[in-house]
Amino acid sequence: MNHPPIITLTTDFGDTGSYVGALRGVLLSRCPGVHLADITHHVTPFSPLEASLILSQACPHFPAGTIHLAIVDPGVGGVRKPVLVRSRGFWFVGPDNGLFTPFLDGADGLFRIREGWPDSETSATFHGRDVFAPAAAYLAAGGDVEVIGEPIRQILQLHIPRPRRERNGVVGQILYSDRFGNLITNIHRRDLEGLSGEIGVRVGSYSIPRLARTYDDGAVGESMALFGSSGYLELAVVQGNAGGQLGVGKGERVQIRGAGAP
Amino acid sequence: MNHPPIITLTTDFGDTGSYVGALRGVLLSRCPGVHLADITHHVTPFSPLEASLILSQACPHFPAGTIHLAIVDPGVGGVRKPVLVRSRGFWFVGPDNGLFTPFLDGADGLFRIREGWPDSETSATFHGRDVFAPAAAYLAAGGDVEVIGEPIRQILQLHIPRPRRERNGVVGQILYSDRFGNLITNIHRRDLEGLSGEIGVRVGSYSIPRLARTYDDGAVGESMALFGSSGYLELAVVQGNAGGQLGVGKGERVQIRGAGAP
Amino acid sequence: MNHPPIITLTTDFGDTGSYVGALRGVLLSRCPGVHLADITHHVTPFSPLEASLILSQACPHFPAGTIHLAIVDPGVGGVRKPVLVRSRGFWFVGPDNGLFTPFLDGADGLFRIREGWPDSETSATFHGRDVFAPAAAYLAAGGDVEVIGEPIRQILQLHIPRPRRERNGVVGQILYSDRFGNLITNIHRRDLEGLSGEIGVRVGSYSIPRLARTYDDGAVGESMALFGSSGYLELAVVQGNAGGQLGVGKGERVQIRGAGAP
Repeated sequence: MNHPPIITLTTDFGDTGSYVGALRGVLLSRCPGVHLADITHHVTPFSPLEASLILSQACPHFPAGTIHLAIVDPGVGGVRKPVLVRSRGFWFVGPDNGLFTPFLDGADGLFRIREGWPDSETSATFHGRDVFAPAAAYLAAGGDVEVIGEPIRQILQLHIPRPRRERNGVVGQILYSDRFGNLITNIHRRDLEGLSGEIGVRVGSYSIPRLARTYDDGAVGESMALFGSSGYLELAVVQGNAGGQLGVGKGERVQIRGAGAP
Repeated sequence: MNHPPIITLTTDFGDTGSYVGALRGVLLSRCPGVHLADITHHVTPFSPLEASLILSQACPHFPAGTIHLAIVDPGVGGVRKPVLVRSRGFWFVGPDNGLFTPFLDGADGLFRIREGWPDSETSATFHGRDVFAPAAAYLAAGGDVEVIGEPIRQILQLHIPRPRRERNGVVGQILYSDRFGNLITNIHRRDLEGLSGEIGVRVGSYSIPRLARTYDDGAVGESMALFGSSGYLELAVVQGNAGGQLGVGKGERVQIRGAGAP
Repeated sequence: MNHPPIITLTTDFGDTGSYVGALRGVLLSRCPGVHLADITHHVTPFSPLEASLILSQACPHFPAGTIHLAIVDPGVGGVRKPVLVRSRGFWFVGPDNGLFTPFLDGADGLFRIREGWPDSETSATFHGRDVFAPAAAYLAAGGDVEVIGEPIRQILQLHIPRPRRERNGVVGQILYSDRFGNLITNIHRRDLEGLSGEIGVRVGSYSIPRLARTYDDGAVGESMALFGSSGYLELAVVQGNAGGQLGVGKGERVQIRGAGAP
């Protein structure tokens, strides 16, 4: 049995208005039968960094051959290029503003969409509908990338802040907060390799003396630190909202120490 | 023509971030071609009771064979079991926290997902992605439940508050408010059988002297009581917001009287 | 290869509760394999005019044969008729309250759904689930419209405010605000034909001296006017929120002048 191709959608369009509907219409018109899978339409407006983190966590779970369409495009109609990135068996389609940074490692094809494709009368303000969706549908329908894209050498990379190693410790920061108020940091499980003793966490004016294993591993209302489902350290509160309770958010410094540290 | 299997999704993940996207990826990878139908991702976080009410009203409309995946899981990674419930021609997949209470009447198969399935390296914090979605996809793809589940005798049931009969009257409560501010009670049409005379409703400091038939059955701004589309008594305001206007909400006592009552 | 029929969904149901899920269930039960494409579920409650604007911008992008189901229905259960409109190769299904005004030009079939269809025991409060979804599914499955509908002569048309021409100028108004705070007016590109000199815009206490081409065509925080992707004049702020910054919204008067005007 032949399965329909899949296009995922990641935008900052929100859920009001006609923008997402227009995208779906274009995709279904140009690639009949395509399976459309929303990742999110609620990226913070104009935040390619946030979008790139979401893509890095959702896209790898899709089957090979999936087309990932991402439209977070503060520079629409300006000089930024529309690009196509082939990486790890996927296609990524969107503006050249760093959205696809997490997938550049592993990329084996970089293209810009040819000027004037699919036609020279595109709107200046809605390239999602008029350029990116047609390109994603074209690739999903099995079209040849060389027809719509010309190879390029490089695309924009975002700086994703990396944690810093210290004497028996690591200093990182909060990257974002999820729906439950869990605070996700840029500190990965592997960044803690070699730390000795029980691990403690400091953030804002709070100390968390140990790492938990699950969100349930403590009394209701207790704050905790644990490794989340993508391997990154999270701050959480049992059945509560860590962002609200700890009074910290995006960008806040997070300090990890092994037990023997001063 | 052969139609794709259907998996419905009911979660408290909201519409930001990567969680729902990761679920869709896993489901499409493990059951190619599956039709994914969102019920809602906006269950109040950590509210299995609310989720069970939503499931009770949405699921019965789907075709037989549909797999209903529900992930509202405050106890993720803790001792609660991952379960599979076969009832009324459907499968229900999710944590054992009472989510499926409305479907236990009619259940003809209860299973827990075998420990270590689908692999022993699951994250402790995202069983939705790592255990429940794989199980739902497995069943949607026609897999044999005995391979992934072992029969169990019982699962958790939530206490759903029931109305109480009084002399020519009924006392119930508001269970939830919908998007329009309509207040849905636990009083079903059949709970009023045998009441005599014109029906009146009291809630908070308000009296509503009669039952309306539709939301349109009164002047704009008028408060009313009527039986909603699932047969339960609702309080509403014509083209307005009953929750706001009456100043009452979830848990508020609602009293029904036949006309002859004191 | 045969592609599944498409039904789009436009409602004011929001994303909580069971209403949208129940719709999907009915549609999938009555038209197995149908492709469901959300336009939006976030129309402002009870606003057929807003819904009609959204439909006018999203629906034309879908392939011919698509069924557009729209349920914004403050008069549910009252006297308004349930209607079926065939226009421009599409079917539109919903209440007769003006929702389909933008598609009456080009309509070649108007029907009301026969009383008592699909059965006489429909709820009085959820015709979306009990009448409109069954009708959309029936048409999507290739059913004969004469079986479920009887021809009618006319349906309700909404008054969509039109801009007014003045001496070397045009006066219109803001129709709605999008997710980014862009303010979309009722002034179309063609309404400005024949204006002489550089175009200036006045709204509230602000003057915008020229038209921009893209949202990016200015410094961050600068206010601008430009033609949006549907050809209508929009007020925007570079990477900002025009509604918030200019302090104006829906219904606000917008005045366009050619350079020679007093």
